[in-house]
Amino acid sequence: MAVSVLPQMKQAPEMNPVERLMAATAADMARVNDLILDRARSHVDMVPELARYLIDSGGKRLRPMLTVAAAILFGRGQGHAVNFAAAVEFMHNATLLHDDVVDESDMRRGKPAARMVWGNKASILVGDFLLGQAFMMMVETGDIEALGVLSAASAVMAEGEVFQLAKTGDLETSAADYAEVIRAKTAVLFEAACAVGAMSGGADAAGRKALALYGLELGNAFQLVDDALDYGGQSGTLGKNVGDDLREGKMTLPVILALEAASDSERAIIASALGKPDATDLEVHQVVAIFNRYDTLRRTLDKARDHAKAAIAALDSLPDSEMKTILADVVQHSVSRAS
Amino acid sequence: MAVSVLPQMKQAPEMNPVERLMAATAADMARVNDLILDRARSHVDMVPELARYLIDSGGKRLRPMLTVAAAILFGRGQGHAVNFAAAVEFMHNATLLHDDVVDESDMRRGKPAARMVWGNKASILVGDFLLGQAFMMMVETGDIEALGVLSAASAVMAEGEVFQLAKTGDLETSAADYAEVIRAKTAVLFEAACAVGAMSGGADAAGRKALALYGLELGNAFQLVDDALDYGGQSGTLGKNVGDDLREGKMTLPVILALEAASDSERAIIASALGKPDATDLEVHQVVAIFNRYDTLRRTLDKARDHAKAAIAALDSLPDSEMKTILADVVQHSVSRAS
Repeated sequence: MAVSVLPQMKQAPEMNPVERLMAATAADMARVNDLILDRARSHVDMVPELARYLIDSGGKRLRPMLTVAAAILFGRGQGHAVNFAAAVEFMHNATLLHDDVVDESDMRRGKPAARMVWGNKASILVGDFLLGQAFMMMVETGDIEALGVLSAASAVMAEGEVFQLAKTGDLETSAADYAEVIRAKTAVLFEAACAVGAMSGGADAAGRKALALYGLELGNAFQLVDDALDYGGQSGTLGKNVGDDLREGKMTLPVILALEAASDSERAIIASALGKPDATDLEVHQVVAIFNRYDTLRRTLDKARDHAKAAIAALDSLPDSEMKTILADVVQHSVSRAS
Repeated sequence: MAVSVLPQMKQAPEMNPVERLMAATAADMARVNDLILDRARSHVDMVPELARYLIDSGGKRLRPMLTVAAAILFGRGQGHAVNFAAAVEFMHNATLLHDDVVDESDMRRGKPAARMVWGNKASILVGDFLLGQAFMMMVETGDIEALGVLSAASAVMAEGEVFQLAKTGDLETSAADYAEVIRAKTAVLFEAACAVGAMSGGADAAGRKALALYGLELGNAFQLVDDALDYGGQSGTLGKNVGDDLREGKMTLPVILALEAASDSERAIIASALGKPDATDLEVHQVVAIFNRYDTLRRTLDKARDHAKAAIAALDSLPDSEMKTILADVVQHSVSRAS
C-alpha cells in the first residue's frame, strides 16, 4: 500500500529517517527545487549568484520537505504544497543571510558564509529579495489563509531574533525567556511549514492542528539539540566551532541552567567568557566543565527529548501510514544527533 | 461639493499641495497612524522603541497618504485603504532601516539614524519585523490581488537595491542602469501605494492603471529631485550632507551625465572622489564644478520634470475632482523643491 502511494521509495532498511523522508518526497521536491532555482533568478547577477551559493550549499531542505510530507500525509489536496515549500525555504534562507550578518558568522554549512564572499550589504538585500519572492510564490496560490500563517511566522521570527539580541549577554535571562526565543526564532517556521503543508493537502481543522503542533515541537527539539551541540564538540558535523554561542553571548539553555546553579566564582568564570569574541579554548573548556558539574548539557537534551515526545504524540490522532511513521522517526533521529 | 466630500479640509489658499493632501486625507490617516502604532507593538521592548523612533521621526508619510488619496479619488469602495496604507508605510520604513545599514548612514531626517542608537543588528531585525507585520496587515484584508501588487513591489525594491550596490563606484554605469535603479528602489513603491489605494477605492482596470502610472512617474520624479538635491546644498532641509552620494560611490544621474561628457582629467577628478568616504568638501566642490560645466544638475531636474508631466498626464482620463487637483499639484510641488 505504501509502495503505491510512494512509488519512488525503495525498500531500504539501511536508510535513516531523513533519507526515508527525502525518498518519500523526492518527486515533489524535484519540482520545489526547480521552483527555487527559477525564483532566485534576476537580471541583477549578484542576486542569483549569492542566493544559489547559499541555497546549493548542502542544506537538507528539511523545512520544505516537511511541507511536502504534510501535504502527502493528507493526500495532496489542491496541490499548492510545491509553492509553499519553496516559499518556506526562501524564508529560511533569508533568515540565515540576515542572521549571519547579525551574528557576524564567518562560516555556514562548512563554507565561508555568503557575507564573507559578497559582503554584509548584499547579504541583507538578497535576504530581503528572497523574502519578497517568498511572498510572491504564496500569493500565486491564492490561499489567503496559508498566507496568513506564513506572514505571521515571518513577523514572529524577526521578533524572536530581536528578543535574542536584546538578551545577549544578559545573565538574568530565564529558561522561560529562552523557551520563547527558540519558539519564535526556530519552532514557528517548522510549525508554519507543516501547517501550510497540511492545509494544501486538504487536512481538516484537527489535522492542521496536529501537524502544526508536530512542527512546533520538532522545531523546539531541533533547536535545543543544536544549542547542546554547540558545546558538544561536533564541529565537523555542524560546520560550527565549539563555543560559538558562548563567544557571541547567546543565552542558551546550557548556560542559563549553569548560571542558576553556579557558585559566585563559577558565575564569574562564565560571565568573563560570555560574549567575549576572542575567548580562548581554555576559557570555553572551563565553562563546559561547569556545565558538566551541573549536568546542563544532559538536561538540555532531556528537554529536547520531551519536545520530541510531544511532537510524536501530536501525530497520535492521525490514521497510520508510511508517511506518519517517517515523520515520527524523523523526530527521533533529530534528537539522536546529540547522543 | 469638495467640502462635503472632504469635511475636514479648510479653505486655505496659503496651504501648499502636500498640506492640502494632508488635510484631505486627515480622517483616514488618523486611523492609519493608530494602526501603525498598534502594529509596531511587541512584547520585546526594543521593537516598538526602535520602530517608533523611526516612524515618529517627522517623515511626511507621503506614500500612505497617496494610498488613502487614491482610494478617496475613487470613492473609498471596500475600505481596505487604511490597512494597505499602514502596510506601505511599514514596507517603506523597513527599507529605510536596511538602507541605512547598507549605506552606513549616520543621520536620517535630521536625527541620528536608528542604527546609531540601537545598532546595525537591531535595525536589520526590526526591519524584518516591520516587513512581516506589513504582510499580516495585507493578509487581513483578504485581497489577494492587492497582496500580489505589494509583494511584487517588495521583491523588486530589494532587487533594485542590490543593483544599485553592484553598480557602486562603477564608472561605466549608464543612464539606463540608473533609470532601472530608481524605478525599482523608489518608484515601484509609489506605484504600488497608488495602485492598491485605487483598488481598495473600487477603481476599474483603467483607473487602477492610471493611478499606478501616476505613482510610478511621481516616484521617478521624486528620486531624480532627491539625487539632484544631494549635490544642491539643501542639507538643512533634507537632513543629508551635500555630496553624501558621491562619498558613497552612488552612480546617480548627475555623475553619470558628467562622466559621459568629461575630459580625461575631469574624469580622473570625479573617479578620485567617488566612493571615498573621507572626500573633502573641496573635492566635492571640484566635482560639482564639473557638473556645472556640463549642466548635469539642471539636466537631471529636467528629467524629473519630464516624469512629473507624465505623472500629471496619467490623471487626464479621470473625472475632475478636488482630489485629482491635489494629486496633480503634489507632483508640481515635489519637483519645485529643487528649483
